[in-house]
Amino acid sequence: MIIVLRPGTTDAELEDLIGRIRSLGLDVDVSRGVKRTVVGVIGEEDKVRVMPLAAIPCVEQVMPVLKPYTLASLEFHPEPSRAAVGGVSIGGGAPFVVIAGPCAVETPEQLRGTALAVWRAGAAALRGGAFKPRTSPYSFQGLGEEGLRLLRAIGDELGMPVVTEVMDTRQVELVDKYADMLQVGARNMQNYTLLTEVGRVGKPVLLKRGMSATVKELLMSAEYILSQGNRQVVLCERGVRSFEDSVRNVLDLSAIPNIKGTSHLPVVVDPSHATGRWDLVAPMARAALAAGADGVMVEVHEHPEEALCDGPQALLPKRFAEMMGDLRRLADALGRGLAKPTRLPVSQHQNL
Amino acid sequence: MIIVLRPGTTDAELEDLIGRIRSLGLDVDVSRGVKRTVVGVIGEEDKVRVMPLAAIPCVEQVMPVLKPYTLASLEFHPEPSRAAVGGVSIGGGAPFVVIAGPCAVETPEQLRGTALAVWRAGAAALRGGAFKPRTSPYSFQGLGEEGLRLLRAIGDELGMPVVTEVMDTRQVELVDKYADMLQVGARNMQNYTLLTEVGRVGKPVLLKRGMSATVKELLMSAEYILSQGNRQVVLCERGVRSFEDSVRNVLDLSAIPNIKGTSHLPVVVDPSHATGRWDLVAPMARAALAAGADGVMVEVHEHPEEALCDGPQALLPKRFAEMMGDLRRLADALGRGLAKPTRLPVSQHQNL
Amino acid sequence: MIIVLRPGTTDAELEDLIGRIRSLGLDVDVSRGVKRTVVGVIGEEDKVRVMPLAAIPCVEQVMPVLKPYTLASLEFHPEPSRAAVGGVSIGGGAPFVVIAGPCAVETPEQLRGTALAVWRAGAAALRGGAFKPRTSPYSFQGLGEEGLRLLRAIGDELGMPVVTEVMDTRQVELVDKYADMLQVGARNMQNYTLLTEVGRVGKPVLLKRGMSATVKELLMSAEYILSQGNRQVVLCERGVRSFEDSVRNVLDLSAIPNIKGTSHLPVVVDPSHATGRWDLVAPMARAALAAGADGVMVEVHEHPEEALCDGPQALLPKRFAEMMGDLRRLADALGRGLAKPTRLPVSQHQNL
Amino acid sequence: MIIVLRPGTTDAELEDLIGRIRSLGLDVDVSRGVKRTVVGVIGEEDKVRVMPLAAIPCVEQVMPVLKPYTLASLEFHPEPSRAAVGGVSIGGGAPFVVIAGPCAVETPEQLRGTALAVWRAGAAALRGGAFKPRTSPYSFQGLGEEGLRLLRAIGDELGMPVVTEVMDTRQVELVDKYADMLQVGARNMQNYTLLTEVGRVGKPVLLKRGMSATVKELLMSAEYILSQGNRQVVLCERGVRSFEDSVRNVLDLSAIPNIKGTSHLPVVVDPSHATGRWDLVAPMARAALAAGADGVMVEVHEHPEEALCDGPQALLPKRFAEMMGDLRRLADALGRGLAKPTRLPVSQHQNL
Repeated sequence: MIIVLRPGTTDAELEDLIGRIRSLGLDVDVSRGVKRTVVGVIGEEDKVRVMPLAAIPCVEQVMPVLKPYTLASLEFHPEPSRAAVGGVSIGGGAPFVVIAGPCAVETPEQLRGTALAVWRAGAAALRGGAFKPRTSPYSFQGLGEEGLRLLRAIGDELGMPVVTEVMDTRQVELVDKYADMLQVGARNMQNYTLLTEVGRVGKPVLLKRGMSATVKELLMSAEYILSQGNRQVVLCERGVRSFEDSVRNVLDLSAIPNIKGTSHLPVVVDPSHATGRWDLVAPMARAALAAGADGVMVEVHEHPEEALCDGPQALLPKRFAEMMGDLRRLADALGRGLAKPTRLPVSQHQNL
Repeated sequence: MIIVLRPGTTDAELEDLIGRIRSLGLDVDVSRGVKRTVVGVIGEEDKVRVMPLAAIPCVEQVMPVLKPYTLASLEFHPEPSRAAVGGVSIGGGAPFVVIAGPCAVETPEQLRGTALAVWRAGAAALRGGAFKPRTSPYSFQGLGEEGLRLLRAIGDELGMPVVTEVMDTRQVELVDKYADMLQVGARNMQNYTLLTEVGRVGKPVLLKRGMSATVKELLMSAEYILSQGNRQVVLCERGVRSFEDSVRNVLDLSAIPNIKGTSHLPVVVDPSHATGRWDLVAPMARAALAAGADGVMVEVHEHPEEALCDGPQALLPKRFAEMMGDLRRLADALGRGLAKPTRLPVSQHQNL
Repeated sequence: MIIVLRPGTTDAELEDLIGRIRSLGLDVDVSRGVKRTVVGVIGEEDKVRVMPLAAIPCVEQVMPVLKPYTLASLEFHPEPSRAAVGGVSIGGGAPFVVIAGPCAVETPEQLRGTALAVWRAGAAALRGGAFKPRTSPYSFQGLGEEGLRLLRAIGDELGMPVVTEVMDTRQVELVDKYADMLQVGARNMQNYTLLTEVGRVGKPVLLKRGMSATVKELLMSAEYILSQGNRQVVLCERGVRSFEDSVRNVLDLSAIPNIKGTSHLPVVVDPSHATGRWDLVAPMARAALAAGADGVMVEVHEHPEEALCDGPQALLPKRFAEMMGDLRRLADALGRGLAKPTRLPVSQHQNL
Repeated sequence: MIIVLRPGTTDAELEDLIGRIRSLGLDVDVSRGVKRTVVGVIGEEDKVRVMPLAAIPCVEQVMPVLKPYTLASLEFHPEPSRAAVGGVSIGGGAPFVVIAGPCAVETPEQLRGTALAVWRAGAAALRGGAFKPRTSPYSFQGLGEEGLRLLRAIGDELGMPVVTEVMDTRQVELVDKYADMLQVGARNMQNYTLLTEVGRVGKPVLLKRGMSATVKELLMSAEYILSQGNRQVVLCERGVRSFEDSVRNVLDLSAIPNIKGTSHLPVVVDPSHATGRWDLVAPMARAALAAGADGVMVEVHEHPEEALCDGPQALLPKRFAEMMGDLRRLADALGRGLAKPTRLPVSQHQNL
């Protein structure tokens, strides 16, 4: 940590500052420049981070030298890490994973139809919301446990691992019972009590970036989960808030290489929620793959105009299948390939 | 609701659309323009809001005519509403309320010293965090119930109602036991399960605007609370995320008259968290008053350089007292005046 | 255009509004809903756009039905348009174009070295700034006409068309003399006098998106150029301002399919200025290609640590060559291919 | 300047870096921490600022210690500076200045009516646009020189100095001939050739903050003007772009004390363009005064529903007069008072 002092700082003020730092068991290096004196802190930066140095009157600026996250960092874990979602691997050089399904589980028929369609087109995992965070209290809020049960059943039938959202600490145990991966939504990225609870679960967590969260804040939220002992965190870029009003959010694909330059955690992209428009989903999924993402999560609905949630961003099954074809060609050109569902016995395939 | 059709929409498509709308018990008005045909929906807009019209291929644009919130709107409740926080009123033309105190309750001595200082300077209510949402899992997370107990005790002693944050649905009952007003933080503004729970409590709720929430979204979150039966919601502007890097957030003071033009709910401002800099707090508190806010919430610490949380934004007691003098003069010039703590017997005052 | 009236609007107010609209030669369609009366304007929306209807007291909301741009729209020109930059085509299904070169022309040696490197790696066009918009008045401002001369000479030698920025109306004639394509920078996207001047030139214009410009505003700026008679406008996505502080701007790749859904104009991407970091340039260039862009513009420098401008975002020649290899494989997989310089006689190639 | 090296930097790399810095005549201070080595540069930071240190492979981070502006800084000029606009002073403790008038000069009658109204209500200076930057090429673009002539005439008649925008370097001489203060609009804040030209003029410049400019960038643009010899620059906060869609921009009033803590330049606020809504103008003008601004610039129109430009944000004369009353009371409570037009002989007043 570097501390820049205001012009006119007295020796007594400097001594007092040094005393505070030394009291934490750290050492200092004082450098007197032409216009400013600068104090460098030597030792564990974390110790001094908790001290509100910027509140000391003689301090003009405090500049951290190190990143505030540890377990999420490449320095802690220099190899890309990998999460095991049911039998499907995400990250660490594994094939590109397509997670697909409806925004919300609505009915057994709707879920089954969509699940079969995405499975046929080659999706490796199934998504679907049973607890839905909705802007309006008057909107459909999800089927709850019944939705989880339906998801689990069709996932087992097709051999697809299942990803679904948990919105509240009181739901963690229930969702853990049914899902292969627990999703923490963008609106809960800084719900620290929820992060702590999913950090105690033995399943991988899909952590979505908050609508106005920096990459650093996303990694700090991952750190909450990691620090509880759960080492399987997959980050999800899903667009950030901006002034642009023709898309829901601006998908920040630079976050993919940006995160991979500082963290070992896998990164997937959700082009459906990011853009809010089905016509932008396939190009953004292709771009995510080309930018180095470990996977995408895409919403599909057989009748978007009747969807209970986010219809305008859902792909029709035939457009999803076209997108899968494009992704397969690109993944091959890039020397990767697409992940496949892994747990279904071949014999069963033929009955569907 | 207005539905704009794409050029080339067939009569069959139009008939299908009209059929869907009529199936909800609503009527339509079709207007054929030179370049576009437009369908107006007549009847309860809420009914059609749940239908994903934008997902229908012939639909180019869907434009809602009405606001999506009802209970929070001026049309529902044309007079400004008022919340009763202990004996202090916020909103509805009541005097300007200053809520002050430390960011976090740290020790009995720290809390008592700060509380006395803000009480002497004329603050009407006391704030202090017992559960702290921190970006880092390694930072001080608050004293929990012990903090709540300390807050309650000093609040009772000084006759100041007490405001404190609740971060999780499992804490609602506990916080309700100690606090006069429950605060929902910016990071939880769209934690809908939490909103639902605080909507079932008999105490007023201070709902902070999310870091990237629109005014409309803030009102929709208030609607969650109101729709559960709790009609005492106070909104809190606390700055929005932007590219500006010399302040923590950009305080959106235009939200005050903006909200008051569409909703009856009281609005207070938190200049401390908004700016993150103590030197900007007093000017922004004055500006909030001049812009028509119902109050401010300000952080104070006797030793900001030792604060366990957000020291750089805390005012020293003497600067807080100066700010109170300025606010008093302005409030008088505007014909309002400042609220005072109301429940303390005069005899007790003299012992402090 | 749809006009929503406030509740309580009188018949006289409605009549007055209708009279104003009819005075423009337009007709109206009045639809009385349960909660609001809505007036639809029938006829040329452009005529009524100039009238500040929202300033009329009985008007609650004005909702345009049509896009405000005409010449830039797909409705006006349903096929993708193509610009001819020297002998290289951009857009309209032409092969993917890589424009590369230094941020600024610094010296004859620097320019020549970089130009040869990017030409060898397969770039189709050469970029280089002679007039540089710099945040600080004390920074290097470019070589001016001498820079243009150097660019022209090396471009001619290698058969690469030349792209360079024009910052001021007084420079248009000069830049037009030397360049094959005139670039209008992000900071000048709404410099309307400059847009008007480059609209009178017979060369294609590369129009960069402003740092906080919406897609609609970018298209309106293109409309300025198009409306002066210059029909060769290429749009350039180069990142938008956001709160994210680990990259210079957030590259909005969704703008590519977003623009292509509404406009016929070609779109290229500048990953160098967008991110400000060389390590993010290649992944973002690949993503741009996969998302459907017509080209990219990339900065290269042989000694980034000595560059007079934007060194940290410049690729070394060998990294640029690697990126070209990746782009070639992806372009092939997508059935496109990369554009090549077209005007150089083969005999000359062998002397370089 | 502080340079943080990557872990694993070799001694040779460090020596090379030190050599580069010493070659600029500067000295270094090397501090080896537990996890990182840090190099402090001693001497004129400006010299090293031009070197792209971040492009050197062993450099992890470059942290400037000093502000990049000099002439605009409080360190260069510790007292608040003051601009003389005709006979009206702005800044440096002078009374609060209200600049008012129409968005655009439309007709002699419109200008005269509005000018008289704002003069009667106590405005100190007159604004009005003759060259209008419009988003659409099809919108009214201003009267040009005829508009300037009309402004000058009515300003002379009423004794009000005149403020008007200059959009292009080729207009500077003309606008200088008529105006008392030259306005550079938000869209031109980084039009560096224009800044350079207005820096050579002997009149004060009103520099509006760009829609997505940081405070630091605004001060850097002021530095361009100051560095050409023109020392009368007045900064204008006019809102910044954000995701909030119910106002045009978010007015950043914290910029007022923020700028005043780092620069001597006067700051005025434009609540009309910031919000785009007349109903928010008066509260924001009051807030600007309370926050410490040196003045406001407000748009007024007698018939907003017929305005050729920005009608929805124009105040009616009677609402403007009410706002002036409020501002007067607040300015008195704050011990300031409002500036008055100064050059009109009393005898003339009576004829109006």
